[in-house]
Amino acid sequence: MQSRLATGRRAPEQRTAPTPPTRPNPPQIILGIDPSLRGTGYGVIRTARPGPEALALGVIRCPAAWQRSRCLARIAAVLREVIAQHQPGACAIEGLFFAQNLQTALLMGEARGASLLAAAEGGLEIYEIAPRKVKQAIVGYGAAGKPAVAKMVQRLLHLTELPAPDAADALALALTLAQEHGRFSLNPLRRV
Amino acid sequence: MQSRLATGRRAPEQRTAPTPPTRPNPPQIILGIDPSLRGTGYGVIRTARPGPEALALGVIRCPAAWQRSRCLARIAAVLREVIAQHQPGACAIEGLFFAQNLQTALLMGEARGASLLAAAEGGLEIYEIAPRKVKQAIVGYGAAGKPAVAKMVQRLLHLTELPAPDAADALALALTLAQEHGRFSLNPLRRV
Repeated sequence: MQSRLATGRRAPEQRTAPTPPTRPNPPQIILGIDPSLRGTGYGVIRTARPGPEALALGVIRCPAAWQRSRCLARIAAVLREVIAQHQPGACAIEGLFFAQNLQTALLMGEARGASLLAAAEGGLEIYEIAPRKVKQAIVGYGAAGKPAVAKMVQRLLHLTELPAPDAADALALALTLAQEHGRFSLNPLRRV
Repeated sequence: MQSRLATGRRAPEQRTAPTPPTRPNPPQIILGIDPSLRGTGYGVIRTARPGPEALALGVIRCPAAWQRSRCLARIAAVLREVIAQHQPGACAIEGLFFAQNLQTALLMGEARGASLLAAAEGGLEIYEIAPRKVKQAIVGYGAAGKPAVAKMVQRLLHLTELPAPDAADALALALTLAQEHGRFSLNPLRRV
């Protein structure tokens, strides 16, 4: 209470700060993850002026012959490496998704679990974003296809080559989080 | 064909060896895991004569208020601690399971992912066992209820108290793996 009263007595220019009070420090480096057992996409962006830039992107491939637990260990190992190298402050991961059946959902969940664990142990703030919201933010159309997302990501980040679809989805997640962090929203992202 | 003919000429006592040639070293210490976001059960047994004994059991509780990623980090941390302390060589984890919907399957998958990752990074051989197979092995009835499993686990391991249902399920998984390791099976367990 003392500190709130003290704040109230400060100069008025303090009250017109560009960031809302609930998010005092929007993260500057963001990791996006599109988890999947055999091909987890990841991408790291830095929110900068005049526009965001890509620091890293890739797809963690795990051959079909690998046991599932080996894939999970590989996913976590690569993500830890990326986190150690680029030190992102926040992570965007794909939220509610489409799965053909319970077995598929289970396998996707396992890849998500390994990814979330790596991000949580790296101390990142983790946000879940629905694919539809990402497409809406990047392409302006919630039912956009993967090629449209990849092309728009390439343009936004000035990439010389078209990113692989899974890496593009991860970068799109990171870009969407960057956008959401900087604005007021009636439907804020969910931390997980 | 040559080897089958050769085997036919061997001394008859060779054919009554207790362990089949494909599994020369059945693990002596086994970790069972029944993963769930808010209450992962675990149990460690040692296969000994005259019967198996429990080395550890417990339930990893995560309050409903915790973010999911925090639960996953907690699950992995406790399992790593258990693995470091008891050095199991193999792990049995619940396989095909029942989920009410895709969202539930996803959350269960995440808990499984964190558990599998901890076991894989601990160097354990991981086997997936269907709940039905566990109940069949422990109670003798594939549709047995949780209380029946817990009672039978208590009896088999000479526990002074009835174990919590999730810990009992984990111990039942470990006991089933111990039994499967020591015998020939037409339907062998799947490594994951």
